Amino acid sequence: MADEKALTGRAEDFSAWYNEVVLRAELADYSPVRGCMVIRPYGYALWENMHQALDDMFKATGHQNAYFPLFIPLSFIAREAKHVEGFAKEMALVTHTRLVADGKGGLTPDPDSALEEPLVVRPTSETIIYDAFAKWVQSYRDLPLLINQWANIVRWEMRTRLFLRTAEFLWQEGHTAHAHADEAEAEAVRMLGVYRTFMEEWMAMPVITGRKSESEKFPGAEHTYACEALMQDNKALQAGTSHNLGQNFARQFDLRFQTEEGGEDYAWNTSWGVSTRLVGGLVMTHGDDAGLAIPPRLAPHQVVVVPIHRNDDDRAAVMGKADHVAATLRAAGVRVHVDARDNMTPGAKFYEWERKGVPMRLEIGPKDVAKEQLVLVRRVVAEGADRKAFLPESEALATIPERLAGIQADMLASALARRDANTHRGVADYDAFREIMEGPGGFVFTGWCGEPSCEEKVKDDTKATIRVLPDEEFRSPDAPQRCVVCGKPATVEAVWARAY
Amino acid sequence: MADEKALTGRAEDFSAWYNEVVLRAELADYSPVRGCMVIRPYGYALWENMHQALDDMFKATGHQNAYFPLFIPLSFIAREAKHVEGFAKEMALVTHTRLVADGKGGLTPDPDSALEEPLVVRPTSETIIYDAFAKWVQSYRDLPLLINQWANIVRWEMRTRLFLRTAEFLWQEGHTAHAHADEAEAEAVRMLGVYRTFMEEWMAMPVITGRKSESEKFPGAEHTYACEALMQDNKALQAGTSHNLGQNFARQFDLRFQTEEGGEDYAWNTSWGVSTRLVGGLVMTHGDDAGLAIPPRLAPHQVVVVPIHRNDDDRAAVMGKADHVAATLRAAGVRVHVDARDNMTPGAKFYEWERKGVPMRLEIGPKDVAKEQLVLVRRVVAEGADRKAFLPESEALATIPERLAGIQADMLASALARRDANTHRGVADYDAFREIMEGPGGFVFTGWCGEPSCEEKVKDDTKATIRVLPDEEFRSPDAPQRCVVCGKPATVEAVWARAY
Repeated sequence: MADEKALTGRAEDFSAWYNEVVLRAELADYSPVRGCMVIRPYGYALWENMHQALDDMFKATGHQNAYFPLFIPLSFIAREAKHVEGFAKEMALVTHTRLVADGKGGLTPDPDSALEEPLVVRPTSETIIYDAFAKWVQSYRDLPLLINQWANIVRWEMRTRLFLRTAEFLWQEGHTAHAHADEAEAEAVRMLGVYRTFMEEWMAMPVITGRKSESEKFPGAEHTYACEALMQDNKALQAGTSHNLGQNFARQFDLRFQTEEGGEDYAWNTSWGVSTRLVGGLVMTHGDDAGLAIPPRLAPHQVVVVPIHRNDDDRAAVMGKADHVAATLRAAGVRVHVDARDNMTPGAKFYEWERKGVPMRLEIGPKDVAKEQLVLVRRVVAEGADRKAFLPESEALATIPERLAGIQADMLASALARRDANTHRGVADYDAFREIMEGPGGFVFTGWCGEPSCEEKVKDDTKATIRVLPDEEFRSPDAPQRCVVCGKPATVEAVWARAY
Repeated sequence: MADEKALTGRAEDFSAWYNEVVLRAELADYSPVRGCMVIRPYGYALWENMHQALDDMFKATGHQNAYFPLFIPLSFIAREAKHVEGFAKEMALVTHTRLVADGKGGLTPDPDSALEEPLVVRPTSETIIYDAFAKWVQSYRDLPLLINQWANIVRWEMRTRLFLRTAEFLWQEGHTAHAHADEAEAEAVRMLGVYRTFMEEWMAMPVITGRKSESEKFPGAEHTYACEALMQDNKALQAGTSHNLGQNFARQFDLRFQTEEGGEDYAWNTSWGVSTRLVGGLVMTHGDDAGLAIPPRLAPHQVVVVPIHRNDDDRAAVMGKADHVAATLRAAGVRVHVDARDNMTPGAKFYEWERKGVPMRLEIGPKDVAKEQLVLVRRVVAEGADRKAFLPESEALATIPERLAGIQADMLASALARRDANTHRGVADYDAFREIMEGPGGFVFTGWCGEPSCEEKVKDDTKATIRVLPDEEFRSPDAPQRCVVCGKPATVEAVWARAY
């Protein structure tokens, strides 16, 4: 079978490896619509787990979900000058609402159904949401307004990659309004922290947080904060962003309120989002040459049970044991799948579940039933640890939840060690900087004078960009005091990388 | 405050009443995009509860979620002749992907970005989904394929109503493929049953199930089954449909498979869906002149606690009790909201929560704290029962879960009694039929010859349509033997009503 062919190795062609993992783990598939993807059940189950964990965190921080229209009047998008400039080149535009026969046996948009004003398929929803907020908010008592939306988004990208950059993607977008500037700032920072927690504790994907430079911030924002992760090809992935929008949108959408002091002011907004791109980040953080590896907390199946039997007697005993084991683990809150397919060898099943990244496999054969033991096989193994363990059944069942937690911790530690091994601090010389960027890549910390021209030069020379001006805990104790490009005094430390 | 004004009465103007309930319960709001709505947090929380209950039922019957593109190539939609005919007049069409300056200071679709083939914003996803299935299914071993999608849908309706008929709405669409015709038929019927269970047990909304006549079936289906509910204005609401698609789409999308016998066949498909329209159905089933009434199983807040205090001493004692009561109920699995706002009178809060349909209110004042009692007030009251009860606190807390279950049961019983009181069976005379349709309305059961011409005549004369050819359990023991319109022998019993 074509499917039994080994994957392309990461070292050989990382990009080909990525596509193969996504397709062969059945996370997603190409679609007949350019740049759009089909999210297959296994990939969607992973996204549902992400969705649920994030949604719980948003609700725990006081946010409520709502839903706003898919279509945005063109005039709305155009109202905030930088906003429309940022999105004008990648918008799907609805212009007609009816089909008629084209006279050649086909169908064509009915000219009589042309809309007076084209509608934009939302590339993001600031404009339509703040227009609604303006109706709902009268007084400071109506603030803060803390809203989140789970939605599909369209940006007509020219070069697309499954999950990483698609014309349509799924995301959440938080939108909040506050009575004071400092509350909006605190909210933007708080939600960046929620994202970081999710990425580290659920995805086992370490991130550097910080502020974007002016040239990289969201069109219409005052400040943009981001979580940046380092993929195994040493390119950065912007995994989530949080924007302090100031009063920029409030002014354009007349989002005013009566202040506690009796005056009137425009509200202060934030917006923040993560998307199905996170699935791509997870693949490129943890996958290996055998395929996908999913951290246990997000895995659709945390444990897969593979029964092994050669005859009907064995079959009954083994299947009975498999069902018992699965029931016991489910009662302990573990997500278990019993692979009872009878048209595949156990070996083929092992390969399939490894490719699909299931954290733990239990093999149960007649001998295991007789010995009351289980064979545990981990998908990923910490350095020096054993991949396979033969354990008394009762011990295995009692310890699997903590073993899964151990795998989760190992995956974060391993990703963190890789990230740190590929992070270069104190780079003060531009030739050395270029050598890293054009060679191994990774995160490079330098001094920066703050001038866009130096940023531009680095981009032209190396394709690298400033990923973030890092938050304090990520800054170097001995950061270079001069700009790596022009040599003038540095105003800030910057983290550079080539990025997705 | 404008909000304190009483609602229009149902008897006075049902349609105005409906809109006011939806707006003033803050379920939804109008949007600046014609025919689209904003689902506000309270309405979305209700939809989330519906979503969760349905999703659990779909998963329990073996279905998996996935996600398919928002855009469908025009050529796909056109492939199934009846399908395109059914949707051609209400499609949002994406024709361009970029904006340029229009030379007058504005923006306009860039002619250079015109798509070769327009894209249709999905009005339903049969075509794009069966195209994907064709790639995934090779053998009978890949069947059945049981998929569901939660998605937004666009149909460019001319006359829109919040939740009931909007240009964009949210829904789920199940799509399945089977190796045998009878399995597809069984699936279509099974999912109709799931819908009925949800509508009765969760929404407390009784429905009649049955098959649609040829003229009312889904464009491209062999058979369409539906759940029909009777609203308080005696108009029917089609609340959910389930379609046996036969091999119609499989043939057009080359969805073939190797049969177990070694031959080849096209797969047999079903599709089935319910939408945010259900929220409108819930409003029109249970609402009254005081506003919305939500069945406890779906209510975002099942119980609202209103603390009543006049001074700071009272306040501390009352709030302490309110928090204790809320914590105790939450621990028992009850969704409780404590309304601690200090800028509203208790009376204003009572009205607001009644308008928002919260099933039960607990009033706690200083006297109640002293007496260790709670005041329970039900939103809806069964005939002859008390609306208000003064109970010892411990008894109240212990019995609230069963009281909520009682309210749920009462709401179903009451809706059922109303439905039955407005159902007319054995109507054999066309004048009598017209008198009902043009007068009180309701469900009318008659004999029908099966001819579309009689259906057409009824529609022209009375605007009523055949809602379903009812399933056996809904049929009349002594159904008329002649067609109510033409007097020829009846081939079937039909349920007629004017409908949303």
